Amino acid sequence: MRIILDAMGGDLAPREPVRGAIMARNEFGCDITLVGQEAAIQKVLEQDGIGQLPPGIDIVNATQVIEICDNPSTAWHDKKDSSMTVGLKMLKDGKGDAFISAGSTGALLSAGTLIVKRIPGIRRAAVAPIVPTGAGHAVLIDAGANSECTPEYMCQFALMGSFYAEMVLGRENPKVGLLNIGSEPSKGSELYKQVHQMLTRAGEAGKLNFVGNVEPTSLSSEDAVDVIVADGFVGNILLKAMEGTANFLVKGLKDVFTTNLKTKLGYLMIQGNMGGFKKMIDSRETGGTAMLGLRKPVFKAHGSSDAYAISHAIGKAVEFVNAGFVDAIAEHVDSFQLSTEEK
Amino acid sequence: MRIILDAMGGDLAPREPVRGAIMARNEFGCDITLVGQEAAIQKVLEQDGIGQLPPGIDIVNATQVIEICDNPSTAWHDKKDSSMTVGLKMLKDGKGDAFISAGSTGALLSAGTLIVKRIPGIRRAAVAPIVPTGAGHAVLIDAGANSECTPEYMCQFALMGSFYAEMVLGRENPKVGLLNIGSEPSKGSELYKQVHQMLTRAGEAGKLNFVGNVEPTSLSSEDAVDVIVADGFVGNILLKAMEGTANFLVKGLKDVFTTNLKTKLGYLMIQGNMGGFKKMIDSRETGGTAMLGLRKPVFKAHGSSDAYAISHAIGKAVEFVNAGFVDAIAEHVDSFQLSTEEK
Repeated sequence: MRIILDAMGGDLAPREPVRGAIMARNEFGCDITLVGQEAAIQKVLEQDGIGQLPPGIDIVNATQVIEICDNPSTAWHDKKDSSMTVGLKMLKDGKGDAFISAGSTGALLSAGTLIVKRIPGIRRAAVAPIVPTGAGHAVLIDAGANSECTPEYMCQFALMGSFYAEMVLGRENPKVGLLNIGSEPSKGSELYKQVHQMLTRAGEAGKLNFVGNVEPTSLSSEDAVDVIVADGFVGNILLKAMEGTANFLVKGLKDVFTTNLKTKLGYLMIQGNMGGFKKMIDSRETGGTAMLGLRKPVFKAHGSSDAYAISHAIGKAVEFVNAGFVDAIAEHVDSFQLSTEEK
Repeated sequence: MRIILDAMGGDLAPREPVRGAIMARNEFGCDITLVGQEAAIQKVLEQDGIGQLPPGIDIVNATQVIEICDNPSTAWHDKKDSSMTVGLKMLKDGKGDAFISAGSTGALLSAGTLIVKRIPGIRRAAVAPIVPTGAGHAVLIDAGANSECTPEYMCQFALMGSFYAEMVLGRENPKVGLLNIGSEPSKGSELYKQVHQMLTRAGEAGKLNFVGNVEPTSLSSEDAVDVIVADGFVGNILLKAMEGTANFLVKGLKDVFTTNLKTKLGYLMIQGNMGGFKKMIDSRETGGTAMLGLRKPVFKAHGSSDAYAISHAIGKAVEFVNAGFVDAIAEHVDSFQLSTEEK
């Protein structure tokens, strides 16, 4: 298996992607192709005192870099020799099994959709991060790819999310919930009411295990859902609200722990047991975010990814490829088409 | 000043509203009318060993109670002798200066809009809770009243929110941000792009201090905005995501603190300094949530409000009445009307 890694994507590129590739090679044994400015990659190796890349990792030169300020819709085309464009073309041409980038989400989504293309029958690709819940984790889909959705898109997200949760969370018959502001079917906007009806019918037809609306407050419950369905705008607000609130509280907590000598000593006594808590809110632990609905596996790693996060994302991509997720979706895509009655 | 309190609203009614009224009477000196089943209220007094209500608090009997399962749109009309309907009619008739209920938000909003009515020129009433941010607090508007919004509604929310922030947060020229998934004006759904344009023009016209889009992750910043503008669906998702994440983390933290004797001792050393942290995430501290845009002050207290939370909400309502918020909105309502050009 070969993972294609965007060496120039993210706030800490190329240093951390290069280090992450070496880490992942040791841990997961997969081949890795670093795509990016060869000289910059070599410089990282020199600085780290590594003469050359270990066997199993190679470099494909790409002279351009897609920046956050570039127009996400056209960047891949405007910069044809960018690491992202070159890497995705390699993926499309079968020169690797998955592509990972910590670069611009918008650019990666446009480039992925236009270069790798969607699975026939899938209306829109969606971003599906794994988020912490009281039950462990859940798949949130869509978390930002599609700010405008039709009910049909969202039903397809639900079905893809269900497959993905089965695979990554190992849950049989995953519980699928529709993100909403109340549990009653009549809650929310017109779009959400329609999706609720369609998912209810899809559930009755045995296509997925729809458990109804879920409010963000219920995600901390021990029997929280496995899949949270949302349009990309609302899903992204949820994701960022969770991240923002966690950062806010952790900062407040740090202030408490460092107030005075007594609290510092108190923290020392607790510190050894904080690991699970930290892990719970550490975005590095969840790996890359899958872009579901494309013909080949494409992953977005967090923009601030360090080597550990990159390596973790590579590990998750390996799992994804091994599980044959894309083939599974393509095989079942007929069941994703809604009958006239269901629309 | 007289505050009309729904004695039957909320999970802990009538006990906690009755206790909260007595607490608030002592602290704020306002007159309070408890509306609800007289026998049930008297029973609370007996159980608490209080023979009769202190001077300044009286009871108006209302035989019915609006339950969470009642249809929120019609409950006030179906149950004409409910505490909510009777209390709001008293408010409308000038028999009090503000109404507070911890009952169903939906029912209160419908009843408030239909009994008390909107300020002429205001298109929709909105729910405007105070939420914690890195800068202290911000007004979130709308947090759940209107699942479907036009750009015009949202611009009025922004203007009302700006007035309210000036009053409750004491900020001059409050910074108004539009909740969104990115900082660029092109981000988000069609609705949000239009609102961004309209608020930019309103800012240029000197009607408010619009600072652009804000992402939920930026709310923990020390220079966070004072007003967060959203449609009611997205605003409610944000509010509940903040609440849910905070509860989730606090639960995780409790587990850490109670792991073993060592962590318990560590917690004892920190405990004395946890006050500020707890206050930061305690919904009881923010008082009731104002329903802005109505002709008289109506407040929703949290459904799980205890006596302290009710008393705090009464205190905030007193401030609101003293500040003359409704008159200020009514006076400036002309500037809330968008010119044809602005639409």
